[in-house]
Amino acid sequence: MHYPEPISRLIDSFMKLPGIGPKTASRLAFFVLTMEEDSVLTFAKSLVDAKRELTYCSTCGHITDVDPCHICQDPRRDRSMICVVQDTKDVIAMEKMRDYNGLYHVLQGAISPMDGIGPEDINIPALIQRLHNDEVQELILATNPTIEGEATAMYISRLVKPSGIKTTRIAHGLPVGGDLEYADEVTLSKALEGRREL
Amino acid sequence: MHYPEPISRLIDSFMKLPGIGPKTASRLAFFVLTMEEDSVLTFAKSLVDAKRELTYCSTCGHITDVDPCHICQDPRRDRSMICVVQDTKDVIAMEKMRDYNGLYHVLQGAISPMDGIGPEDINIPALIQRLHNDEVQELILATNPTIEGEATAMYISRLVKPSGIKTTRIAHGLPVGGDLEYADEVTLSKALEGRREL
Repeated sequence: MHYPEPISRLIDSFMKLPGIGPKTASRLAFFVLTMEEDSVLTFAKSLVDAKRELTYCSTCGHITDVDPCHICQDPRRDRSMICVVQDTKDVIAMEKMRDYNGLYHVLQGAISPMDGIGPEDINIPALIQRLHNDEVQELILATNPTIEGEATAMYISRLVKPSGIKTTRIAHGLPVGGDLEYADEVTLSKALEGRREL
Repeated sequence: MHYPEPISRLIDSFMKLPGIGPKTASRLAFFVLTMEEDSVLTFAKSLVDAKRELTYCSTCGHITDVDPCHICQDPRRDRSMICVVQDTKDVIAMEKMRDYNGLYHVLQGAISPMDGIGPEDINIPALIQRLHNDEVQELILATNPTIEGEATAMYISRLVKPSGIKTTRIAHGLPVGGDLEYADEVTLSKALEGRREL
């Protein structure tokens, strides 16, 4: 005998989550036993609800509980701009900034030949479909500054160029609060390349 | 708008767990969205089951799904020994060792005047009750080697002494595989004090 059956089942469930090993899982499971029954029920319900009620917006691919999502539905949004990001969490990061008022397009990934992910495996066809709409004037490519993100931005920009829609890429450079001394060479070179007159 | 309602509720639930901050909680919540619906349902059910089906053994205080627990019920166990530990997880650690075949008593804590925890706030009265049974011949005090654990062991040993039951304390010394060079002074002093003839 090790753990009683119900707790070892709970430990197994926690261990399926990313970054949670056997020790953390058992710590979390024992913590659940000390929680109020109401909180545990709320936790269980929120798990099931999140899985069942959430879906991807059929327009932009952002995660949402209504379709189209709140952003696509919002009449105050500037429909002439679409910001292309890799992930739902990137939309949240952009929204926290409060400086952008256009629409989004979530790719749910990036082109990565090494992993066998091509343009048709991510949300690119739907993006091209959206561009047929006359409203769109600028496509802001905000994929991550990684090899995959750059390749994806490059691919989309080449695909869109013939249509005459302006495509821009977010700036690369030193992060605010960062230290020049500790910046890697590629970032520093990008920062120099992207210098602007004051 | 930040996260859709169902996911922010799930993030809140994850954040109630120990050692999980907003970033980890949102990473876990988004991971749940990518899980199979069946796994999510199993997870939710295991949470509720663990909370509802588990209780503390009325004899020894160990966590269990039957009362008395499997260990207290087991006829092959040596009923002349009770090993006193602070926590349910300590029972699991002892059981993993497979060298001990007696019974347990889980205190669910330790005496800690600083936190206002006295002998009556932990599972000591039930222990004294069990000792009235003639079967018990030895009480092994396996509380943690901390100030609170030592104080608890000392308190119990003084309480039990008049009854003539043998009370022993687990040994303190260098952990196996440890390095003398890195041992702290208190551990080293305990190791020297507890030396045995070969």
